[in-house]
Amino acid sequence: MIETDTSSHGYAPQKDQLIKRLRRIEGQVRGIAKMVDEDRYCIDVLQQVSAVKAAMDKVALGLLNDHVTHCMTAGGADDERAREATAELIGAVRRLVRS
Amino acid sequence: MIETDTSSHGYAPQKDQLIKRLRRIEGQVRGIAKMVDEDRYCIDVLQQVSAVKAAMDKVALGLLNDHVTHCMTAGGADDERAREATAELIGAVRRLVRS
Amino acid sequence: MIETDTSSHGYAPQKDQLIKRLRRIEGQVRGIAKMVDEDRYCIDVLQQVSAVKAAMDKVALGLLNDHVTHCMTAGGADDERAREATAELIGAVRRLVRS
Amino acid sequence: MIETDTSSHGYAPQKDQLIKRLRRIEGQVRGIAKMVDEDRYCIDVLQQVSAVKAAMDKVALGLLNDHVTHCMTAGGADDERAREATAELIGAVRRLVRS
Repeated sequence: MIETDTSSHGYAPQKDQLIKRLRRIEGQVRGIAKMVDEDRYCIDVLQQVSAVKAAMDKVALGLLNDHVTHCMTAGGADDERAREATAELIGAVRRLVRS
Repeated sequence: MIETDTSSHGYAPQKDQLIKRLRRIEGQVRGIAKMVDEDRYCIDVLQQVSAVKAAMDKVALGLLNDHVTHCMTAGGADDERAREATAELIGAVRRLVRS
Repeated sequence: MIETDTSSHGYAPQKDQLIKRLRRIEGQVRGIAKMVDEDRYCIDVLQQVSAVKAAMDKVALGLLNDHVTHCMTAGGADDERAREATAELIGAVRRLVRS
Repeated sequence: MIETDTSSHGYAPQKDQLIKRLRRIEGQVRGIAKMVDEDRYCIDVLQQVSAVKAAMDKVALGLLNDHVTHCMTAGGADDERAREATAELIGAVRRLVRS
């Protein structure tokens, strides 16, 4: 069943938000193609490229967050403890990715 | 005139290739949204997110390459020298971005 | 006791290797300062800077690996399962950090 | 002569500042080895690893800045124009590296 399947992958709660965010990124990429087609200034195009990369990182950290929480609670950790450990871990990965 | 305008931004020669590449990335992002919607395994989704980031880096390095070549030749450097200096510089930026 | 303390942070098994690696990175950074002092070519210096960043990423992924394994087994997951889930997760983080 | 050599690599003006910064980073890396040796909490160690990576990026952007300015003025661009174009370019690279 889909419900079960979803919960087993751990990103159900934020699924809609994730898809929305990805639609927005899709639009950003289309916008960059348009900028290139219109011969917009290279530095401005690069700014949009960096914005897409940053947005993809947010998507990735959201996915990781749900996955890790899921792994930990599946492993038997209580919810509160799993949430705390995950938040700490994701914070560390975020600093690592952005540096 | 468009021709002139294009050359002034320095990415004319590879414009078609860039737009093609961006169309492909747009499709990749759409594919990721579909994966999320179908509750595909988080780690597989993350792999696609990383692929999009790497593809955006290639776009950025291509844009930078044309921009820097253009800046240098506009500054009066001869073409061969500008190409060499640019290749060296872009190599350094690539290593920096990917590390 | 140190033994207990160490195991509670989860990087005991690879502690010596990590410290060795960090000593090597310290030497690399000192080497970069020397290159700058000797007016070595900028692009060569940049290559060493990228090498240090890549080496720091390896340190980080090693630390993360031990931490996540520890969190999962502490949460009650059996060792084999925790190792597998961690390897998968660290692979995803590596691709994310390097892209 | 050193003077000539230095100017030919383009980072003379900020040489002392760069070396100072690298000495500080060397100390940070030594501090991380000490943290590992003292079994400090993994997440805190990771934070220092990210700080070193960010500091290395600043070093790299400083080197790039001087190199690009040098390439452009060597190519015949006037100083003011070269400085502007370089600042713009380095800004773009910074956004790219940090995202």
